Amino acid sequence: MKKKIGVVLSGCGVYDGSEIHEAVFTLLAIDRNGAEAVCMAPNILLDEVDHLAGAPTGGKRSVLVESARIARGKIKNIADVKGTDLDAIIFPGGFGAAKNLCDFAVKGAAAAPNPDVARLVKEMVAARKPIGAICIAPALIAAILGKECSPKLTIGNDAATAAAINATGSCHVECPVTEFVVDSENRIVSTPAYMLAGHIGEAAEGIEKTVKAVIDLI
Amino acid sequence: MKKKIGVVLSGCGVYDGSEIHEAVFTLLAIDRNGAEAVCMAPNILLDEVDHLAGAPTGGKRSVLVESARIARGKIKNIADVKGTDLDAIIFPGGFGAAKNLCDFAVKGAAAAPNPDVARLVKEMVAARKPIGAICIAPALIAAILGKECSPKLTIGNDAATAAAINATGSCHVECPVTEFVVDSENRIVSTPAYMLAGHIGEAAEGIEKTVKAVIDLI
Repeated sequence: MKKKIGVVLSGCGVYDGSEIHEAVFTLLAIDRNGAEAVCMAPNILLDEVDHLAGAPTGGKRSVLVESARIARGKIKNIADVKGTDLDAIIFPGGFGAAKNLCDFAVKGAAAAPNPDVARLVKEMVAARKPIGAICIAPALIAAILGKECSPKLTIGNDAATAAAINATGSCHVECPVTEFVVDSENRIVSTPAYMLAGHIGEAAEGIEKTVKAVIDLI
Repeated sequence: MKKKIGVVLSGCGVYDGSEIHEAVFTLLAIDRNGAEAVCMAPNILLDEVDHLAGAPTGGKRSVLVESARIARGKIKNIADVKGTDLDAIIFPGGFGAAKNLCDFAVKGAAAAPNPDVARLVKEMVAARKPIGAICIAPALIAAILGKECSPKLTIGNDAATAAAINATGSCHVECPVTEFVVDSENRIVSTPAYMLAGHIGEAAEGIEKTVKAVIDLI
Protein backbone atom coordinates (compact mmCIF):
# COMPACT_ATOMS: atom_id res chain seq x y z
CA MET A 1 0.00 0.00 0.00
CA LYS A 2 1.34 3.39 -1.01
CA LYS A 3 1.38 6.13 1.59
CA LYS A 4 -1.49 8.56 1.02
CA ILE A 5 -0.56 12.24 1.01
CA GLY A 6 -3.38 14.77 1.07
CA VAL A 7 -2.80 17.80 -1.16
CA VAL A 8 -5.12 20.66 -0.26
CA LEU A 9 -5.80 22.95 -3.20
CA SER A 10 -7.47 26.37 -3.11
CA GLY A 11 -8.27 27.11 -6.76
CA CYS A 12 -6.10 27.24 -9.88
CA GLY A 13 -3.82 30.26 -10.24
CA VAL A 14 -1.40 32.17 -8.02
CA TYR A 15 -3.56 35.30 -7.59
CA ASP A 16 -6.89 33.71 -6.62
CA GLY A 17 -6.13 30.06 -5.93
CA SER A 18 -3.30 27.54 -5.60
CA GLU A 19 0.03 28.54 -7.09
CA ILE A 20 0.04 26.14 -10.02
CA HIS A 21 3.77 25.39 -10.19
CA GLU A 22 3.92 24.70 -6.45
CA ALA A 23 0.93 22.36 -6.63
CA VAL A 24 2.33 20.45 -9.61
CA PHE A 25 5.80 20.08 -8.03
CA THR A 26 4.09 18.75 -4.90
CA LEU A 27 2.19 16.13 -6.93
CA LEU A 28 5.33 15.12 -8.84
CA ALA A 29 7.46 14.80 -5.69
CA ILE A 30 4.79 12.66 -4.02
CA ASP A 31 4.83 10.30 -7.01
CA ARG A 32 8.64 10.23 -7.22
CA ASN A 33 8.81 9.32 -3.53
CA GLY A 34 6.56 6.31 -4.14
CA ALA A 35 3.48 7.77 -2.44
CA GLU A 36 -0.01 8.59 -3.69
CA ALA A 37 -1.51 12.10 -3.82
CA VAL A 38 -5.08 12.58 -2.61
CA CYS A 39 -6.18 15.97 -3.95
CA MET A 40 -8.92 17.87 -2.18
CA ALA A 41 -10.39 21.37 -1.89
CA PRO A 42 -13.28 23.03 -0.11
CA ASN A 43 -16.54 23.47 -2.02
CA ILE A 44 -16.70 27.25 -1.64
CA LEU A 45 -16.44 30.26 -3.97
CA LEU A 46 -13.35 32.38 -4.71
CA ASP A 47 -13.04 35.97 -5.97
CA GLU A 48 -11.78 35.63 -9.56
CA VAL A 49 -8.63 37.53 -10.54
CA ASP A 50 -7.68 38.15 -14.19
CA HIS A 51 -4.11 36.79 -14.25
CA LEU A 52 -3.19 38.80 -17.37
CA ALA A 53 -4.40 42.14 -16.00
CA GLY A 54 -3.52 41.23 -12.39
CA ALA A 55 -6.87 42.62 -11.23
CA PRO A 56 -10.10 41.26 -9.72
CA THR A 57 -12.90 40.73 -12.25
CA GLY A 58 -15.75 40.91 -9.72
CA GLY A 59 -16.69 37.36 -10.73
CA LYS A 60 -16.77 34.22 -8.59
CA ARG A 61 -15.53 30.70 -9.34
CA SER A 62 -15.77 27.44 -7.43
CA VAL A 63 -12.61 26.58 -5.48
CA LEU A 64 -13.35 22.86 -5.87
CA VAL A 65 -14.10 22.98 -9.61
CA GLU A 66 -11.08 25.16 -10.42
CA SER A 67 -8.80 23.01 -8.24
CA ALA A 68 -9.96 20.03 -10.33
CA ARG A 69 -7.96 21.53 -13.23
CA ILE A 70 -4.70 20.90 -11.35
CA ALA A 71 -5.87 17.46 -10.23
CA ARG A 72 -7.00 16.43 -13.75
CA GLY A 73 -10.52 15.89 -12.40
CA LYS A 74 -9.51 13.54 -9.58
CA ILE A 75 -10.34 15.53 -6.48
CA LYS A 76 -12.43 15.28 -3.31
CA ASN A 77 -14.46 17.76 -1.34
CA ILE A 78 -12.32 18.26 1.78
CA ALA A 79 -15.50 17.96 3.88
CA ASP A 80 -15.50 14.26 2.95
CA VAL A 81 -11.86 13.59 3.95
CA LYS A 82 -10.87 12.40 7.42
CA GLY A 83 -7.45 12.34 9.04
CA THR A 84 -7.67 8.53 9.12
CA ASP A 85 -7.76 8.54 5.27
CA LEU A 86 -4.27 10.10 5.08
CA ASP A 87 -0.68 9.46 6.17
CA ALA A 88 0.37 13.10 5.73
CA ILE A 89 -1.02 16.34 4.33
CA ILE A 90 0.60 19.12 2.26
CA PHE A 91 -0.60 22.64 1.47
CA PRO A 92 0.78 24.31 -1.67
CA GLY A 93 0.78 28.12 -1.63
CA GLY A 94 -0.78 30.77 -3.81
CA PHE A 95 -3.07 33.58 -2.70
CA GLY A 96 -5.88 31.03 -2.32
CA ALA A 97 -4.14 29.44 0.67
CA ALA A 98 -4.35 32.78 2.50
CA LYS A 99 -7.71 33.95 1.12
CA ASN A 100 -9.84 30.84 0.42
CA LEU A 101 -8.57 28.33 3.00
CA CYS A 102 -8.49 31.09 5.63
CA ASP A 103 -8.70 34.91 5.65
CA PHE A 104 -5.09 35.64 6.63
CA ALA A 105 -4.70 37.78 3.48
CA VAL A 106 -7.36 40.14 4.88
CA LYS A 107 -7.10 39.73 8.66
CA GLY A 108 -3.47 38.76 9.30
CA ALA A 109 -2.90 37.33 12.79
CA ALA A 110 -6.65 37.48 13.52
CA ALA A 111 -7.36 35.12 10.62
CA ALA A 112 -9.99 32.37 10.89
CA PRO A 113 -9.50 29.15 8.91
CA ASN A 114 -12.10 27.35 6.79
CA PRO A 115 -13.77 24.96 9.29
CA ASP A 116 -13.15 21.79 7.26
CA VAL A 117 -9.51 22.69 6.70
CA ALA A 118 -9.05 23.42 10.41
CA ARG A 119 -10.76 20.17 11.38
CA LEU A 120 -8.57 18.07 9.09
CA VAL A 121 -5.33 19.77 10.20
CA LYS A 122 -6.24 19.19 13.84
CA GLU A 123 -7.04 15.54 13.14
CA MET A 124 -3.60 15.16 11.56
CA VAL A 125 -1.90 16.84 14.54
CA ALA A 126 -3.82 14.69 17.00
CA ALA A 127 -2.70 11.55 15.13
CA ARG A 128 0.94 12.83 14.99
CA LYS A 129 0.82 12.72 11.16
CA PRO A 130 3.17 15.12 9.33
CA ILE A 131 2.09 18.37 7.67
CA GLY A 132 3.82 20.22 4.85
CA ALA A 133 3.20 23.92 4.11
CA ILE A 134 4.58 25.77 1.09
CA CYS A 135 4.97 29.49 0.29
CA ILE A 136 2.22 31.45 2.15
CA ALA A 137 0.46 28.27 3.38
CA PRO A 138 2.41 28.34 6.69
CA ALA A 139 0.27 31.41 7.54
CA LEU A 140 -2.78 29.12 7.27
CA ILE A 141 -1.15 26.59 9.61
CA ALA A 142 -0.34 29.45 12.01
CA ALA A 143 -3.98 30.55 11.92
CA ILE A 144 -5.10 27.01 12.83
CA LEU A 145 -2.40 25.94 15.27
CA GLY A 146 -0.70 29.12 16.54
CA LYS A 147 -2.45 29.22 19.91
CA GLU A 148 -2.68 25.44 20.23
CA CYS A 149 0.94 24.33 19.78
CA SER A 150 3.14 27.31 18.73
CA PRO A 151 4.37 25.76 15.47
CA LYS A 152 7.79 26.73 14.07
CA LEU A 153 7.27 27.83 10.45
CA THR A 154 8.89 29.68 7.54
CA ILE A 155 7.56 31.82 4.72
CA GLY A 156 11.09 32.95 3.83
CA ASN A 157 12.01 36.40 5.13
CA ASP A 158 9.11 38.83 4.55
CA ALA A 159 9.07 40.88 7.76
CA ALA A 160 5.39 41.85 7.81
CA THR A 161 4.16 38.31 7.12
CA ALA A 162 6.61 36.88 9.66
CA ALA A 163 5.35 39.35 12.27
CA ALA A 164 1.74 38.36 11.62
CA ILE A 165 2.68 34.68 11.92
CA ASN A 166 4.44 35.36 15.23
CA ALA A 167 1.36 37.27 16.43
CA THR A 168 -0.72 34.07 16.09
CA GLY A 169 1.49 32.45 18.73
CA SER A 170 3.60 30.66 16.11
CA CYS A 171 7.35 31.10 15.69
CA HIS A 172 8.63 32.29 12.31
CA VAL A 173 12.13 31.18 11.24
CA GLU A 174 13.95 32.70 8.25
CA CYS A 175 14.85 30.21 5.52
CA PRO A 176 16.38 30.36 2.02
CA VAL A 177 14.19 29.37 -0.94
CA THR A 178 15.87 26.04 -1.71
CA GLU A 179 15.73 24.86 1.90
CA PHE A 180 13.01 24.04 4.44
CA VAL A 181 12.30 24.31 8.15
CA VAL A 182 11.29 21.30 10.26
CA ASP A 183 9.27 21.62 13.45
CA SER A 184 10.18 18.21 14.87
CA GLU A 185 7.87 18.49 17.85
CA ASN A 186 4.77 19.24 15.80
CA ARG A 187 5.97 17.34 12.70
CA ILE A 188 5.49 20.32 10.36
CA VAL A 189 7.78 21.04 7.37
CA SER A 190 7.66 24.39 5.53
CA THR A 191 9.49 26.06 2.62
CA PRO A 192 9.32 29.58 1.11
CA ALA A 193 8.89 28.63 -2.61
CA TYR A 194 7.46 31.64 -4.50
CA MET A 195 7.52 33.84 -1.38
CA LEU A 196 11.22 34.08 -2.34
CA ALA A 197 11.87 32.23 -5.60
CA GLY A 198 13.52 34.27 -8.35
CA HIS A 199 12.94 31.53 -10.88
CA ILE A 200 10.90 28.34 -11.15
CA GLY A 201 13.83 25.97 -10.46
CA GLU A 202 14.34 27.47 -7.01
CA ALA A 203 10.71 26.87 -6.06
CA ALA A 204 10.92 23.30 -7.39
CA GLU A 205 14.06 22.50 -5.40
CA GLY A 206 12.62 23.65 -2.06
CA ILE A 207 9.37 21.80 -2.67
CA GLU A 208 11.10 18.56 -3.71
CA LYS A 209 13.08 18.61 -0.45
CA THR A 210 10.01 19.52 1.61
CA VAL A 211 7.80 16.75 0.20
CA LYS A 212 10.56 14.19 0.79
CA ALA A 213 11.01 15.45 4.36
CA VAL A 214 7.25 15.16 5.00
CA ILE A 215 7.13 11.61 3.64
CA ASP A 216 10.26 10.65 5.62
CA LEU A 217 8.43 11.73 8.80
CA ILE A 218 5.57 9.23 8.27
CA MET B 1 22.28 35.81 -23.17
CA LYS B 2 20.01 32.89 -22.30
CA LYS B 3 18.40 30.97 -25.12
CA LYS B 4 14.76 31.98 -25.50
CA ILE B 5 12.28 29.12 -25.73
CA GLY B 6 8.73 29.94 -26.74
CA VAL B 7 6.07 28.00 -24.81
CA VAL B 8 2.71 28.13 -26.56
CA LEU B 9 -0.19 27.73 -24.14
CA SER B 10 -3.83 27.10 -25.02
CA GLY B 11 -5.70 27.77 -21.77
CA CYS B 12 -5.35 26.30 -18.28
CA GLY B 13 -6.65 22.77 -17.77
CA VAL B 14 -6.38 19.46 -19.60
CA TYR B 15 -9.99 19.36 -20.87
CA ASP B 16 -10.28 22.85 -22.38
CA GLY B 17 -6.74 24.26 -22.45
CA SER B 18 -3.11 23.36 -21.80
CA GLU B 19 -2.45 20.25 -19.73
CA ILE B 20 -1.18 21.99 -16.60
CA HIS B 21 1.41 19.40 -15.49
CA GLU B 22 2.90 19.24 -18.99
CA ALA B 23 3.13 23.03 -19.23
CA VAL B 24 4.76 23.33 -15.80
CA PHE B 25 7.29 20.55 -16.48
CA THR B 26 8.16 22.32 -19.73
CA LEU B 27 8.79 25.60 -17.89
CA LEU B 28 10.88 23.86 -15.21
CA ALA B 29 13.00 21.94 -17.73
CA ILE B 30 13.67 25.13 -19.70
CA ASP B 31 14.93 26.81 -16.51
CA ARG B 32 16.98 23.79 -15.44
CA ASN B 33 18.67 23.73 -18.85
CA GLY B 34 19.74 27.36 -18.41
CA ALA B 35 17.30 28.80 -20.93
CA GLU B 36 14.46 31.32 -20.62
CA ALA B 37 10.79 30.55 -21.26
CA VAL B 38 8.74 33.01 -23.31
CA CYS B 39 5.10 32.13 -22.67
CA MET B 40 2.48 33.05 -25.24
CA ALA B 41 -1.08 32.19 -26.27
CA PRO B 42 -3.58 33.38 -28.85
CA ASN B 43 -6.12 36.00 -27.79
CA ILE B 44 -9.20 33.90 -28.65
CA LEU B 45 -12.02 32.25 -26.70
CA LEU B 46 -12.26 28.63 -25.53
CA ASP B 47 -15.27 26.47 -24.66
CA GLU B 48 -15.15 26.07 -20.88
CA VAL B 49 -15.20 22.54 -19.44
CA ASP B 50 -16.02 21.85 -15.78
CA HIS B 51 -13.01 19.74 -14.74
CA LEU B 52 -14.85 18.23 -11.76
CA ALA B 53 -17.90 17.11 -13.76
CA GLY B 54 -15.86 16.51 -16.93
CA ALA B 55 -18.54 18.27 -18.99
CA PRO B 56 -18.83 21.50 -21.02
CA THR B 57 -20.49 24.38 -19.16
CA GLY B 58 -21.59 26.27 -22.26
CA GLY B 59 -19.47 29.21 -21.08
CA LYS B 60 -16.47 30.81 -22.78
CA ARG B 61 -13.13 31.91 -21.36
CA SER B 62 -10.16 33.75 -22.87
CA VAL B 63 -7.32 31.44 -23.93
CA LEU B 64 -4.79 34.21 -23.27
CA VAL B 65 -6.14 35.22 -19.84
CA GLU B 66 -6.47 31.60 -18.63
CA SER B 67 -3.01 30.72 -19.95
CA ALA B 68 -1.68 33.62 -17.85
CA ARG B 69 -2.49 31.50 -14.78
CA ILE B 70 0.19 28.98 -15.76
CA ALA B 71 2.61 31.78 -16.70
CA ARG B 72 2.04 33.70 -13.43
CA GLY B 73 0.89 36.70 -15.49
CA LYS B 74 4.00 36.89 -17.70
CA ILE B 75 2.63 36.05 -21.12
CA LYS B 76 2.43 37.52 -24.63
CA ASN B 77 -0.22 37.51 -27.29
CA ILE B 78 1.23 35.11 -29.89
CA ALA B 79 0.24 37.60 -32.59
CA ASP B 80 3.03 39.84 -31.26
CA VAL B 81 5.77 37.15 -31.30
CA LYS B 82 8.05 36.63 -34.29
CA GLY B 83 10.33 33.69 -35.08
CA THR B 84 13.30 36.04 -34.72
CA ASP B 85 12.36 36.55 -31.04
CA LEU B 86 12.94 32.86 -30.25
CA ASP B 87 15.65 30.18 -30.40
CA ALA B 88 13.15 27.29 -30.19
CA ILE B 89 9.47 26.73 -29.53
CA ILE B 90 7.62 24.08 -27.50
CA PHE B 91 3.93 23.13 -27.44
CA PRO B 92 2.60 21.42 -24.29
CA GLY B 93 -0.47 19.24 -24.79
CA GLY B 94 -3.96 19.25 -23.36
CA PHE B 95 -7.21 19.36 -25.27
CA GLY B 96 -6.58 23.06 -25.99
CA ALA B 97 -3.67 22.21 -28.31
CA ALA B 98 -6.07 20.24 -30.51
CA LYS B 99 -9.15 22.45 -30.08
CA ASN B 100 -7.94 26.04 -29.51
CA LEU B 101 -4.62 26.15 -31.42
CA CYS B 102 -6.23 24.18 -34.28
CA ASP B 103 -9.41 22.17 -34.81
CA PHE B 104 -7.84 18.70 -35.01
CA ALA B 105 -10.08 17.54 -32.15
CA VAL B 106 -13.09 18.17 -34.39
CA LYS B 107 -11.78 17.74 -37.94
CA GLY B 108 -8.88 15.28 -37.61
CA ALA B 109 -6.63 15.21 -40.66
CA ALA B 110 -8.60 18.09 -42.24
CA ALA B 111 -7.74 20.38 -39.32
CA ALA B 112 -6.87 24.03 -39.84
CA PRO B 113 -4.46 25.73 -37.44
CA ASN B 114 -4.88 29.12 -35.76
CA PRO B 115 -3.27 31.54 -38.26
CA ASP B 116 -0.82 33.10 -35.79
CA VAL B 117 0.28 29.69 -34.51
CA ALA B 118 0.79 28.47 -38.09
CA ARG B 119 2.73 31.60 -39.04
CA LEU B 120 5.08 31.30 -36.07
CA VAL B 121 5.70 27.57 -36.60
CA LYS B 122 6.51 28.19 -40.26
CA GLU B 123 8.87 31.03 -39.32
CA MET B 124 10.67 28.63 -36.95
CA VAL B 125 10.91 25.94 -39.65
CA ALA B 126 12.19 28.43 -42.23
CA ALA B 127 14.91 29.53 -39.79
CA ARG B 128 15.80 25.87 -38.97
CA LYS B 129 14.96 26.51 -35.30
CA PRO B 130 13.85 23.43 -33.28
CA ILE B 131 10.27 22.65 -32.30
CA GLY B 132 9.05 20.51 -29.40
CA ALA B 133 5.56 18.98 -29.27
CA ILE B 134 4.11 17.17 -26.26
CA CYS B 135 1.11 14.82 -25.85
CA ILE B 136 -1.53 15.71 -28.50
CA ALA B 137 0.38 18.81 -29.72
CA PRO B 138 2.12 16.80 -32.48
CA ALA B 139 -1.32 16.67 -34.16
CA LEU B 140 -1.18 20.48 -34.31
CA ILE B 141 2.29 20.33 -35.90
CA ALA B 142 0.96 17.75 -38.37
CA ALA B 143 -1.92 20.08 -39.26
CA ILE B 144 0.55 22.90 -39.95
CA LEU B 145 3.45 21.04 -41.58
CA GLY B 146 2.06 17.69 -42.81
CA LYS B 147 1.82 18.65 -46.46
CA GLU B 148 4.84 20.96 -46.36
CA CYS B 149 7.56 18.72 -44.97
CA SER B 150 6.10 15.36 -43.82
CA PRO B 151 7.29 15.62 -40.21
CA LYS B 152 8.02 12.47 -38.19
CA LEU B 153 6.03 12.69 -34.94
CA THR B 154 4.72 10.66 -32.00
CA ILE B 155 1.63 10.85 -29.82
CA GLY B 156 2.42 7.44 -28.30
CA ASN B 157 0.40 4.58 -29.76
CA ASP B 158 -3.26 5.61 -30.14
CA ALA B 159 -4.22 4.07 -33.49
CA ALA B 160 -6.96 6.49 -34.52
CA THR B 161 -4.92 9.61 -33.70
CA ALA B 162 -1.85 8.13 -35.42
CA ALA B 163 -3.95 7.43 -38.55
CA ALA B 164 -5.24 11.00 -38.61
CA ILE B 165 -1.68 12.31 -38.23
CA ASN B 166 -0.53 10.10 -41.11
CA ALA B 167 -3.46 11.36 -43.21
CA THR B 168 -2.06 14.92 -42.96
CA GLY B 169 1.06 13.75 -44.80
CA SER B 170 3.03 13.38 -41.58
CA CYS B 171 4.60 10.13 -40.37
CA HIS B 172 3.56 8.80 -36.95
CA VAL B 173 6.10 6.74 -35.00
CA GLU B 174 5.17 4.74 -31.88
CA CYS B 175 7.06 5.78 -28.73
CA PRO B 176 6.96 4.87 -25.02
CA VAL B 177 5.91 7.56 -22.54
CA THR B 178 9.33 8.20 -21.00
CA GLU B 179 11.04 8.57 -24.39
CA PHE B 180 10.82 10.94 -27.37
CA VAL B 181 11.06 10.91 -31.16
CA VAL B 182 13.44 13.20 -33.05
CA ASP B 183 12.81 14.27 -36.64
CA SER B 184 16.40 15.33 -37.40
CA GLU B 185 15.60 16.68 -40.85
CA ASN B 186 12.84 19.00 -39.65
CA ARG B 187 14.32 19.49 -36.15
CA ILE B 188 11.13 18.44 -34.35
CA VAL B 189 11.09 16.54 -31.03
CA SER B 190 7.90 14.93 -29.69
CA THR B 191 6.87 12.83 -26.67
CA PRO B 192 3.58 11.14 -25.66
CA ALA B 193 3.27 12.48 -22.06
CA TYR B 194 -0.37 12.15 -20.91
CA MET B 195 -1.40 10.45 -24.17
CA LEU B 196 0.17 7.43 -22.43
CA ALA B 197 1.28 8.36 -18.91
CA GLY B 198 -0.10 6.17 -16.12
CA HIS B 199 1.23 8.53 -13.48
CA ILE B 200 2.64 12.05 -13.29
CA GLY B 201 6.29 10.94 -13.01
CA GLU B 202 6.15 9.27 -16.43
CA ALA B 203 4.89 12.43 -18.10
CA ALA B 204 7.58 14.47 -16.32
CA GLU B 205 10.39 12.14 -17.45
CA GLY B 206 9.45 12.25 -21.14
CA ILE B 207 9.03 16.02 -21.05
CA GLU B 208 12.37 16.60 -19.27
CA LYS B 209 14.14 14.58 -21.98
CA THR B 210 12.22 16.30 -24.77
CA VAL B 211 12.94 19.84 -23.59
CA LYS B 212 16.64 19.00 -23.22
CA ALA B 213 16.68 17.49 -26.72
CA VAL B 214 15.04 20.62 -28.16
CA ILE B 215 17.54 22.92 -26.45
CA ASP B 216 20.46 20.72 -27.53
CA LEU B 217 19.32 21.18 -31.16
CA ILE B 218 19.68 25.00 -30.99
